[in-house]
Amino acid sequence: MRSLWFDHGSLCLIDQRQLPFKLRITRAKSMADVRLCITDMVVRGAPAIGCAAAFGYALGKRRGERRLYARLLATRPTAFDLRFALDHMTNADRNGCDLIEAAQDYTEAIIEKCHRIGKVGAPLIKDADMILTHCNAGALATVDWGTALAPMRVARDAGTEFTVLVDETRPRLQGAFLTAWELENEGIPFKLIADNAAGHFLSRGEVDLVMVGADRVCRNGDIANKIGTYEKAVVAKENGVPFYVAAPISTIDLSLSDGKQIPIEERSSDEVLFVRGQRITRHGACAANPAFDVTPARKVTGFLTEFGIVRPGDIKGLNVRRPNPA
Amino acid sequence: MRSLWFDHGSLCLIDQRQLPFKLRITRAKSMADVRLCITDMVVRGAPAIGCAAAFGYALGKRRGERRLYARLLATRPTAFDLRFALDHMTNADRNGCDLIEAAQDYTEAIIEKCHRIGKVGAPLIKDADMILTHCNAGALATVDWGTALAPMRVARDAGTEFTVLVDETRPRLQGAFLTAWELENEGIPFKLIADNAAGHFLSRGEVDLVMVGADRVCRNGDIANKIGTYEKAVVAKENGVPFYVAAPISTIDLSLSDGKQIPIEERSSDEVLFVRGQRITRHGACAANPAFDVTPARKVTGFLTEFGIVRPGDIKGLNVRRPNPA
Repeated sequence: MRSLWFDHGSLCLIDQRQLPFKLRITRAKSMADVRLCITDMVVRGAPAIGCAAAFGYALGKRRGERRLYARLLATRPTAFDLRFALDHMTNADRNGCDLIEAAQDYTEAIIEKCHRIGKVGAPLIKDADMILTHCNAGALATVDWGTALAPMRVARDAGTEFTVLVDETRPRLQGAFLTAWELENEGIPFKLIADNAAGHFLSRGEVDLVMVGADRVCRNGDIANKIGTYEKAVVAKENGVPFYVAAPISTIDLSLSDGKQIPIEERSSDEVLFVRGQRITRHGACAANPAFDVTPARKVTGFLTEFGIVRPGDIKGLNVRRPNPA
Repeated sequence: MRSLWFDHGSLCLIDQRQLPFKLRITRAKSMADVRLCITDMVVRGAPAIGCAAAFGYALGKRRGERRLYARLLATRPTAFDLRFALDHMTNADRNGCDLIEAAQDYTEAIIEKCHRIGKVGAPLIKDADMILTHCNAGALATVDWGTALAPMRVARDAGTEFTVLVDETRPRLQGAFLTAWELENEGIPFKLIADNAAGHFLSRGEVDLVMVGADRVCRNGDIANKIGTYEKAVVAKENGVPFYVAAPISTIDLSLSDGKQIPIEERSSDEVLFVRGQRITRHGACAANPAFDVTPARKVTGFLTEFGIVRPGDIKGLNVRRPNPA
C-alpha cells in the first residue's frame, strides 16, 4: 500500500495523523483540499509532500483554482521537494502536458529513486546490526520504499537480520506512530525509545549506524531534518558511529550555501503541550516548537542518494537537474 | 511547601505522580509504605529519595520491620544519596539516637546544602540569560530549594531576570509535569520544549548555560543523571555552552572510579509506550527504557556543591565525610 495514489479524479491519502490507531483514507478533490492535507499533516515527509503538491497542482488546474504554485508552496517552509515538485508541474503545464499524468510520473520517479536509495544503502547493513533512526523516513514519507527505511527493506529482503532503534520523535511522535507501524508491517524487529535514550545507546557502542532522512540539503552538505536530528548526529560523531542521510536529489537545494539559510518552521505549541489530546503541563504554560533543526555537513558520514553514496563535500558538484523555476 | 515532611507519626509526601494536575498528599506509616513510595515514584529525585529512605528507616525501626537497610537500598539502583542517607541512619541507630530526629536532621541538612548550592550557583546567572535544564532538580527532588533550580531561585530573589528552557524529559515528563509546575509557582519565566529541541537552541547560541542535577557522581567526575542528560552535555560542549551539575556532596560516590561502574536502572517499557494513560504505539511493540545515562567528566564545566564550584578533576580530592557503611 502506498501513502497516496490517484483514483477516480481525486487524490487518496492515508491520514497519517490517525496512524497507527486507525487506517483512514482521505480524498482530496481540489488544490485547496490538498493544501489542507499538507498543512494539517494528513501527509508529511518531504518527498510525499512533493508528490501530494504535484497532484494538488493538477487538480487545481482542472478546477480552475488560482495561484496554484504560490499557495501550495506556502504550506510548509522547510521541505525542499515541495518546490522541486511544483517546478516540475509548472514546466509540464507550460509544455501543455496532461497534468495528472505529470504528477503521476513525478510520483513514480520518486518511488523509483527511493528504491534505488534502498539498493545503495542496503550493503551498509550487516547481520546483527542495530540501526538508529529518527522520525519517519519510510514509505509513508515518500509514497513507497522510504528514504532512511528503504535500505532496511532491501537488506531485509536480502536476508540480513538486524534491529532498528526507533526514536519516538516528540513532539509529533512520528517514530512511535509511523515508523513503528511500518516496521511492524514489514516484519523488521525494532525497539521504541524515548528520544532522550538515543545518546545512551550510542555511547555504549550498541548502535552500529544511524540512518535518517532530510527535508532539505544545502550546497555545503548541511541538512535540515526533523527536530532532534542534530543532537543524534552530534552524539553519533562523538562516538564514532556512522551517520547517513538518505535523500533523493530532489531534496538538494543548491541555491543555499549553508544550513543557516534554511527556513525553520515553528509549529503550534499545542504539539508540545498535548499528547494524544492529553495535556502534559498546566494550563497557561508556554512552549517553543521548532519543527526542524540543522545538522552541519561535518556530522554527516554520507548521503544515500539514487546516484550512490555522496560525501557531504561532493553535494555542490552534483548535477542536480532542477526543473526551471516557476 | 516541602515535598515531604514528618507529621503525627507518619511521613507525608506530595504524590509527584499526580502533579501538576492534582496536589495530593500521601501518608507513609511504615518502612514498607515508604519503600512503595520510592519504587512507585511518589517521591523521586536523588536527595529527596535519601530523605524519604531516612524516615522509612526510622518508621521501620519503630514498627519492628526487618532488613530495613537492604530493603530500602533495593528500591532504586542509581541514586547514591539513598545509600548515603541509610548509612547516616544506621550510624544513628548504632549510637542509640532518636531515629525520627536523625531523619529530620538529615533532611534539614539536605535543605541547607541545597540552599548553599543556590548561593554558589546564583552568580553564574546574568540578566537576560536563557538557562536550559533537564528533568526536575527542584524542590520536589530535594525536599526544598532544589539543586539545579536552587541557583535560579536565589538569582530570582536577587532580582536577576532570566528565562528557563525546560526539557519535557520523556519518558516520565518530569520537566513538563514538575519543573514547569515549580517554576510557575516561583514566578520564574520558562518555555517548555520537546527534548529534541534542546540541541537546536544550543546550536543557535540561544542558551547561555545548562544546569542539571545528578543521581550519582564518580571519583573521576563522571555523573549519572536522568536519561537524556548525556546528549545535552555533549551538544552543550559542542557549542561552547557551560554545563553545570548541581549536587550535594551526598551524591558523590568515591567508591566508583568512573561512570561505567554506575548501575543504570531499566524501568518498565510502559513508561515509553504510554503517555498519561494513552498508548502511543500499537499493541505489542517493544520499548527499551533506561532511566539514566552517564555523562563523562570532560563534558562538565563544574559542579555546584555546598562547598562551592568544584572542577570535575577535583572531585576525587574532596573530603567526603561519608557515614560508616552498614
